[in-house]
Amino acid sequence: MSAQQLGIPKGTRDFNPEQMVRRKHIFSTIEKVFIKYGYQPLETPSMENLSTLTGKYGEEGDQLLYKILNSGDFLDKVTPEEIHQGYKTLTGKVAGKGLRYDLTVPFARYVVMNHHEITFPFKRYQLQPVWRADRPQKGRYREFYQCDADVVGTDSLICEAEIVAMIQDVLDNLLLKDYTIKINNRKILSGITEIMDAHGRENDFCVAVDKLDKIGLGKVLEELEQRGFSKESLARAMPIFEQVNGSNGEKLKFLESYLNRSESGINGVREIRQILDFVKDLDVDESHLEFDVTLARGLTYYTGAIIEVKAEGVQIGSIGGGGRYDNLTGVFGLPGISGVGFSFGVDRIYDVMDELKLFTNQVDVNKKVLVVHFDETSFRHGLSVLAELRREDIPSEIYPEQAKLKKQLNYANKKGIPFVILVGSEEIRSEKYPLKDMTKGEQQHLSIHEIVSTLK
Amino acid sequence: MSAQQLGIPKGTRDFNPEQMVRRKHIFSTIEKVFIKYGYQPLETPSMENLSTLTGKYGEEGDQLLYKILNSGDFLDKVTPEEIHQGYKTLTGKVAGKGLRYDLTVPFARYVVMNHHEITFPFKRYQLQPVWRADRPQKGRYREFYQCDADVVGTDSLICEAEIVAMIQDVLDNLLLKDYTIKINNRKILSGITEIMDAHGRENDFCVAVDKLDKIGLGKVLEELEQRGFSKESLARAMPIFEQVNGSNGEKLKFLESYLNRSESGINGVREIRQILDFVKDLDVDESHLEFDVTLARGLTYYTGAIIEVKAEGVQIGSIGGGGRYDNLTGVFGLPGISGVGFSFGVDRIYDVMDELKLFTNQVDVNKKVLVVHFDETSFRHGLSVLAELRREDIPSEIYPEQAKLKKQLNYANKKGIPFVILVGSEEIRSEKYPLKDMTKGEQQHLSIHEIVSTLK
Repeated sequence: MSAQQLGIPKGTRDFNPEQMVRRKHIFSTIEKVFIKYGYQPLETPSMENLSTLTGKYGEEGDQLLYKILNSGDFLDKVTPEEIHQGYKTLTGKVAGKGLRYDLTVPFARYVVMNHHEITFPFKRYQLQPVWRADRPQKGRYREFYQCDADVVGTDSLICEAEIVAMIQDVLDNLLLKDYTIKINNRKILSGITEIMDAHGRENDFCVAVDKLDKIGLGKVLEELEQRGFSKESLARAMPIFEQVNGSNGEKLKFLESYLNRSESGINGVREIRQILDFVKDLDVDESHLEFDVTLARGLTYYTGAIIEVKAEGVQIGSIGGGGRYDNLTGVFGLPGISGVGFSFGVDRIYDVMDELKLFTNQVDVNKKVLVVHFDETSFRHGLSVLAELRREDIPSEIYPEQAKLKKQLNYANKKGIPFVILVGSEEIRSEKYPLKDMTKGEQQHLSIHEIVSTLK
Repeated sequence: MSAQQLGIPKGTRDFNPEQMVRRKHIFSTIEKVFIKYGYQPLETPSMENLSTLTGKYGEEGDQLLYKILNSGDFLDKVTPEEIHQGYKTLTGKVAGKGLRYDLTVPFARYVVMNHHEITFPFKRYQLQPVWRADRPQKGRYREFYQCDADVVGTDSLICEAEIVAMIQDVLDNLLLKDYTIKINNRKILSGITEIMDAHGRENDFCVAVDKLDKIGLGKVLEELEQRGFSKESLARAMPIFEQVNGSNGEKLKFLESYLNRSESGINGVREIRQILDFVKDLDVDESHLEFDVTLARGLTYYTGAIIEVKAEGVQIGSIGGGGRYDNLTGVFGLPGISGVGFSFGVDRIYDVMDELKLFTNQVDVNKKVLVVHFDETSFRHGLSVLAELRREDIPSEIYPEQAKLKKQLNYANKKGIPFVILVGSEEIRSEKYPLKDMTKGEQQHLSIHEIVSTLK
């Protein structure tokens, strides 16, 4: 095979060291915050039985699942008739496993399988890749990481408030300043459909309203009409699009009167108020938090709060979302476990930070030293210098071969190694070594102890 | 689907929070050491084109590859003849991608694809799961992590010596005291076959000798005979099994005379000596390092050093291995890049540490606090306590619902949360809170600042 033919599957990526250091910075920031808020780590297998995954993500989702060919003679138990029935029938016969499509369904499966051992409320976080056979495009990959935190087994609204606090904590730590946390409540959306005399049709309503940002109000109303909402219904909904303005408090006040005939709607307003109060108690900057009555996130399984974060001033938009679901585990035979969760989109956050140039040098480089030498003797002596640096946990390496000074310094430059220690015969005698700062071009003569304290 | 039918694929595992905290401890220890020795992180996709993977792991390996069914109508371009030719022909038609089988082949693929951008020597580490459709058994899983560090683009033996130093650094940090680092050199094994007048047959020789630990000398000699080695050849090899004794120095001295007719063999001895010298320069404890002339590791692609670590006093044995390969990237059309690498077996290390009870409480628990409350007022006040703790980066949570004291303390106990802060009306007034140490059962009345400094 020649180098020219080599490649990786469409929609997947290699991450080189520079990208990895930046990605790790994002992951570890998120993980530290999750831990700080009392979430515990969990991991599930990359492969799940297909029976666990199918039917959970809608028909489109089923088609986007990666299926794994059974090992050995996968045709062994397949009849010629089954082959003639085409690929859909055959899939179930030749593939019993699939790759994880998200972290939520495997988590639900885990909770159901282990609910006798779990102490509820159960707060877990999970940072793992997921796979979707989607059409690749900018910002959409076939393998990407999700960073989820969920609490199951309580319907306390403090969980929603803590999610808001966590989002702010993560984005503050990543130095992302310009963002909006949008919050809504499914019960308010239900209430609106009640007021519209279209009770029970909130799924249709949400799917259309979810596109408001992308296609505008005119097209949303068109779509709603196509979905069978009457002109009268839509007229009743118009205040939602036109009159919900001002501060969060003003919007909620308007809705309280608009929804006064809907118990569900009033409950939704009450929940949002409670969450805003808790957010205040948690001493969180409220300026990023925006109640948005049109936020729907297309996901029909949310039953309470709906949350989304948008980075402002960049094309990309949503960098995470979540909400409350009252029946996560019901599909696996364990009803009545309420949960609320949030997922950070690491790839999106990376792209936003890159666009806004938020990756500082500090993020890029693990402080590092290259020991440079001139001959066999100074190489051998350099090894003891290296041992001393590493004993002090200072990342360091030695150029592994006899090579010209220029080549060794070139290596340090290209790798972004910020410090170089030169070891020659004079240095071996005096036990003072030139420590060269590659960024500033400055050089100091220091003992090994002085070098250690300078670099630490 | 009922809870009873739920499961996960054979040979895969869920990792609960307790296991995760321990696993993360192992991963982060290994990663810190890799970084300390100047290795840079890399990640490659879980899926590779099957053409990248097949033919790289032998015939058995090809069968253990997980293949991913093509998306959409995978039968679209398959002819009835191809179906009749059976599953082996069909595999290539219906599956174009496979899951990563190890980290080495994807790394080689990465180096070849990016060699114009890479500054050599290139030191990379990679911590990612791999998948093998192997028969599951104790200590063997179908999804497991590998932790690899490799240097490519230099044949300097300092790399081998640094691998020895890294192994010791990792195991010291994990508090694993009783282990042996075995080292050998493929050139010595080649030299031995030359002395046996079986030049060029070192693969057959190694495969048999590799089983010495498991099946004993008698069976190894039987197998060698079956593989066509003459009785005369085997007689010439006997000193290897019977006379290589004593210290590393004594063994090498014996081999130097035994191998004196073989240039390759003498080179191998010289390389081992050089590595031992470098290890000394790096100030590494040599007592764990054992030159073992029978170490072969079955992998025929090693061309120089062969390294293996064994945990002593436990059943499991090998917890990592590696060596030098002169032609890693040749198979992808880029010859002449020498490399040396090592891989830690995290699952094995976990099992060894578990068996030896090396997971201390400190490893198990992220220091954590539960804020306990008695009514709505103390709950709300508790939120401000929580905000203060988190501002100081102390992992903490509040029991999210109104509940009896006993229930809340029970939650802390079951989750292994070591500290509890009680917030009641008296505490709100005095701004002093009982901080309860759940392990010792002791309790102190402290201000929030005193609590922070106690817990930090």
